[in-house]
Amino acid sequence: MNSNTMPLPVADEDIEHVALDEDYVLTPAFVEKVVDAADDGDGLKLRGLLEDLHPADVADLMGFLTAEHRAVVTLWLPPDLLAETLPELDDGIREEVLERVPHLTLAEALQELDSDDAAAVVEDLEQDQREKVLAAMPEVDRAAIESSLGYAEDSAGRLMQREVMAAPQFWNVGDTIDHVRAQGEELPELFFDIYVVDPLNRPVGGVPVSRLLRTPRATPLSEIMDPVNEIAVDQDQEEVAYIFEKYHLISAPVIDSAGRLVGQVTVDDIVNIIQEENREDILRLAGVADEDRGSSVSEIVRGRVPWLAINLATAVLGASVIGWFEGTIQEIVALAILMPIVSAIGGNAGTQALTVTVRALATRELNSSNAPRTFWREMLVGMANGLVLAPLIGVATAFWFWDEDWRIGLVIAAAMVLNLLVAATVGVLTPLTLSRLKFDPAVSSAVFVTATTDFFGFLIFLGLATVVLL
Amino acid sequence: MNSNTMPLPVADEDIEHVALDEDYVLTPAFVEKVVDAADDGDGLKLRGLLEDLHPADVADLMGFLTAEHRAVVTLWLPPDLLAETLPELDDGIREEVLERVPHLTLAEALQELDSDDAAAVVEDLEQDQREKVLAAMPEVDRAAIESSLGYAEDSAGRLMQREVMAAPQFWNVGDTIDHVRAQGEELPELFFDIYVVDPLNRPVGGVPVSRLLRTPRATPLSEIMDPVNEIAVDQDQEEVAYIFEKYHLISAPVIDSAGRLVGQVTVDDIVNIIQEENREDILRLAGVADEDRGSSVSEIVRGRVPWLAINLATAVLGASVIGWFEGTIQEIVALAILMPIVSAIGGNAGTQALTVTVRALATRELNSSNAPRTFWREMLVGMANGLVLAPLIGVATAFWFWDEDWRIGLVIAAAMVLNLLVAATVGVLTPLTLSRLKFDPAVSSAVFVTATTDFFGFLIFLGLATVVLL
Repeated sequence: MNSNTMPLPVADEDIEHVALDEDYVLTPAFVEKVVDAADDGDGLKLRGLLEDLHPADVADLMGFLTAEHRAVVTLWLPPDLLAETLPELDDGIREEVLERVPHLTLAEALQELDSDDAAAVVEDLEQDQREKVLAAMPEVDRAAIESSLGYAEDSAGRLMQREVMAAPQFWNVGDTIDHVRAQGEELPELFFDIYVVDPLNRPVGGVPVSRLLRTPRATPLSEIMDPVNEIAVDQDQEEVAYIFEKYHLISAPVIDSAGRLVGQVTVDDIVNIIQEENREDILRLAGVADEDRGSSVSEIVRGRVPWLAINLATAVLGASVIGWFEGTIQEIVALAILMPIVSAIGGNAGTQALTVTVRALATRELNSSNAPRTFWREMLVGMANGLVLAPLIGVATAFWFWDEDWRIGLVIAAAMVLNLLVAATVGVLTPLTLSRLKFDPAVSSAVFVTATTDFFGFLIFLGLATVVLL
Repeated sequence: MNSNTMPLPVADEDIEHVALDEDYVLTPAFVEKVVDAADDGDGLKLRGLLEDLHPADVADLMGFLTAEHRAVVTLWLPPDLLAETLPELDDGIREEVLERVPHLTLAEALQELDSDDAAAVVEDLEQDQREKVLAAMPEVDRAAIESSLGYAEDSAGRLMQREVMAAPQFWNVGDTIDHVRAQGEELPELFFDIYVVDPLNRPVGGVPVSRLLRTPRATPLSEIMDPVNEIAVDQDQEEVAYIFEKYHLISAPVIDSAGRLVGQVTVDDIVNIIQEENREDILRLAGVADEDRGSSVSEIVRGRVPWLAINLATAVLGASVIGWFEGTIQEIVALAILMPIVSAIGGNAGTQALTVTVRALATRELNSSNAPRTFWREMLVGMANGLVLAPLIGVATAFWFWDEDWRIGLVIAAAMVLNLLVAATVGVLTPLTLSRLKFDPAVSSAVFVTATTDFFGFLIFLGLATVVLL
């Protein structure tokens, strides 16, 4: 967790350093300056440009640079700024930067960070580099990092910081304030709640720091504490984020299986989790595996080609449906012209229903108590969509192909209504089923939905046409 | 802003009230109990079930109920719990609930809320109800709400709370603590940073409350304060969220055009904004206008049909391309069977590139300094995707239609590579162009991208076939 220090957008006289625009985004002009200095190998100029930046801005800058320029910047970054920048970097870029930092420099840098941030960096090191770096650290820091890495990835244990401010339940406000004054150095750099614990170190309540400040010294903590919601150390980070978001929490105590206080999670880490989960959902719906600015072309292709290949297979399946009706198409070529319309609308309506359902599952607005109602609502929506769109395309088609057979309009209208019902069904049931089976409802849903609407779109349209028109 | 009080998951002996599972989600069994009590008109039982819930859980419960059951629950909810629940409700449900609450009850309830929450509720009232409610409130509360509503929707002014803890820059730690003790009642219920202001009330720094607590009383604030990032009162909430996320802020001061402190934004409101913006992006990419659990079927259809209608129009455009090649298809029906494959893969690859680009724009990872690089990277990815997939479909097609003309395999392979380049181009340039023109890059991008890949997919495949095969 960082303190909320940050550079103010710099005043006009300081024109040399105008790195950020009024929205705190790096200006292209500043990025250009860094690129020029890196190209010239002008290390002093580079350091001058970088040293006043906030670590988050350095990380941002790295994302805008090429790998070659990042190497030069890494070399000239002041060591303490490098340390604070590491946890802010995109995964791909962090791995690349870490390969270039000598392990002794790294061991020193990591001691400056909170245990959760240091662990996140060590996690990304290659096995042999990790061993060297940990060996070069003091015992206490090494133990903290190893304990953090002992928890499952994406668990509260990995997310928490071990530093907490705890107070025994028999203390009063004055005792607590005196303790904070005396122990200042060993406490977390920033904290928002004081956790009140029983003799077994189990949290029994929490007191916001601002409340402590405004309450008379003689008041017992037990009189001003609120109930706290405890986070289990093995709880998934997505669930932790849900709890923070729902109850507007700023921090929460983490407990082990015996209920003892072992750390705390703070809201600034949660904001990152929320963005990460949202990013995953939105990319997975589009069939993109995780990629970021640091990903190489071959990494990106490896992440995207599998979905395109699956899509190719399902498209061939759809095509073979068309193959069954070769004879019908040979007689009425208009059908070949019109059939993509039926499948396109079905695919889009299915994707709408799918996206709404995936989102409702992600925010836990949808569960077994309202799933049937949601399903029927989507069926009604599909029916209503059909009743609006089918007449449009039906009449247009009837006029378009009047000379051949106006009844093609009837066929396409009926096919569209039926395929919109297929779309609603598969759009809702696919993510619900995946979720029930404990799979991520966003993964592979979209391919399955459009494959189904293509398949049935072609089948219904060409099938009806064969029956009605031939 | 709420304090972080919340119900603990209830112990076993209290089985009557087990509303939440271990992840703090309402259990279907509890929802069922509420529905039964509402059906029986058993108001006392209903109140017993509800009164111990956290407002966020009541809001959640409302989302799982039908409108009829919500009406009964609203009637039996204790007034103070109703007040705190209102800001937590989905927009659609809040409007529905507000219609059922008498304006005197509402005027009383709103006085319990912070100014930003109260304003958010009043905003949703019908004009005549709004006037009645405001007229029934004390002057000071009314003024606060009216001032908040005077700022633009989605601006920092609307988001902020007016209550802040400010301290003159010549105070020391002891002065500040004594002031908090003395003025307790007039300060915000919770605060995380103390803003240090100059004689013109302009923020010059910030001190986290925990740092105040651990610093000796004689230390001047100016020695321990950090620079703060100021939020302009008219700044868009999306920009405010970006700043909070980037710099891991817990709270930030809001200033007017003269630089004077007028309020503060806290991170718990930002978490909601981030979720709202993510929700908008993900739904807009799928062509769904804003809808939530409270939306009626007709509202949902009105939000979705326009996109389907636009999609219908573009599908007709694609179909007319096929129409140009009626003669070719009549001679080689295999083309009708294969053409949806080319357009499907193009559409999917385009959507991948589009989604990645929209996401990068939303998180400001993409701007004019790396746009050309991003474009070329996507072109390389498109080319690589093509080189992987085209041989697959080319060879498969050559065997499939060996008896007719194996060169169809060559044609489909070439068409696929070309259409993947079209997909990469349009997938990146569409959102970049919309963003440059200050439009939301998520809106209507997907329809345009798939329309383009359909159009060119058909044109390239059927065109090449006409030239090569006839």
